Amino acid sequence: MLFRQLFDYETYTYTYLLADEESKEAVLIDPVREQVERDAALINQLGLKLKYTLETHVHADHVTGGGLLRVKLGSKTILNEKANSSCSDLNLAHGSKISFGKYELEIRSTPGHTDGCSTFVFHGRDDLPTMAFTGDALFVRGCGRTDFQQGSAEKLFKSIHEQIYTLPDQTIIYPGHDYKGHQLSTVAEEKQFNPRIKMEIKMEDFCQTMNNLNLPNPKHIHEAVPANLNCGLKGDEMA
Amino acid sequence: MLFRQLFDYETYTYTYLLADEESKEAVLIDPVREQVERDAALINQLGLKLKYTLETHVHADHVTGGGLLRVKLGSKTILNEKANSSCSDLNLAHGSKISFGKYELEIRSTPGHTDGCSTFVFHGRDDLPTMAFTGDALFVRGCGRTDFQQGSAEKLFKSIHEQIYTLPDQTIIYPGHDYKGHQLSTVAEEKQFNPRIKMEIKMEDFCQTMNNLNLPNPKHIHEAVPANLNCGLKGDEMA
Repeated sequence: MLFRQLFDYETYTYTYLLADEESKEAVLIDPVREQVERDAALINQLGLKLKYTLETHVHADHVTGGGLLRVKLGSKTILNEKANSSCSDLNLAHGSKISFGKYELEIRSTPGHTDGCSTFVFHGRDDLPTMAFTGDALFVRGCGRTDFQQGSAEKLFKSIHEQIYTLPDQTIIYPGHDYKGHQLSTVAEEKQFNPRIKMEIKMEDFCQTMNNLNLPNPKHIHEAVPANLNCGLKGDEMA
Repeated sequence: MLFRQLFDYETYTYTYLLADEESKEAVLIDPVREQVERDAALINQLGLKLKYTLETHVHADHVTGGGLLRVKLGSKTILNEKANSSCSDLNLAHGSKISFGKYELEIRSTPGHTDGCSTFVFHGRDDLPTMAFTGDALFVRGCGRTDFQQGSAEKLFKSIHEQIYTLPDQTIIYPGHDYKGHQLSTVAEEKQFNPRIKMEIKMEDFCQTMNNLNLPNPKHIHEAVPANLNCGLKGDEMA
């Protein structure tokens, strides 16, 4: 499998490119609008066909490149059905499978940061490890905030414990953001070392922490959320 | 093999952790002084023993964490013998091997950005790909500058063509920096797409480009270079 992790320095966002090198079918998880030229150039240079752009959720801190890539490369946009986007080509339910060439990703609903969050799971095969693209549910030694967009600390606790920590210990965690320069982690590491949500922390203590973070809103939340419900497109950019 | 790519947002520097999961012996390539706490915490959490810190060169844009990690974790510092550091524990020649557990890295001298630059090569085995840690010789779609610290565009051209482009096409290029959010590349990609030094570009044209970049000096070059010749240590920090 061809795999690339890409980064947007402005918003600390990770974008992931996965492709089947035989059929050349590719998916891009959480593309950033300002990086569409970079990502499209890479996809073209590698001779790939972008089948889908996948959003882990309706982001509040950056605008997706999914809509522009649809216009540019003919890809379809995918969101969790609970995200309530009327723009998305496919609004998929928990348990749905997304295929590209001989590979597939499973959508797991992991609400808590928002109500419509997904974690995309690649189940290991052909010497490839199991990988979980956790968006803003689980970060390396951290987790997403739960104080806006129908966030819920209780739901996030259940999502992480029931949908992510139940994956094999060696599963690689690929987060939606990182703010300290970490690239990845594993389920085993987060269960043991995540200061917010390691295994020994009880739900009530987690909720107390999360409900008292008192963070300021993301700077561009009031533009980003409506833009992302529209695939990151402005009116005159609709395909 | 346990492998992590780490990033310093201030200086856009990549640090690489490689370890043998059986013996727990680890090496760290190009650690950054400001990230020593992060890196030491990760090494401790993973239960690793840091055997060596390796510098691809005497950096001009950031201060190495090698000396502090030596004090903190007992690791030895490694530089190319051509870097002329009196502080380094091991000053190794082109062709030397560095072992950690059952794995080893080959040092290849790749002068041009500085006269004492190394590329560290892991030759593929056990389903692991060949990997080249190219420091500031070759970047993803770019290369290091050649206008200070005994830099030489002609030497850099020869280093990349003779020591890096001669590796198998699927060799993964792990650069010392990236400024656009790319994580890695391959020898095949750089030969085809690197705008400065793809295969079709002749040495004289490369030298003309490099000798006319007219870049300002890195902000902290006059502190960073002497500090790095001293393993990044201040006087009272010597072990």
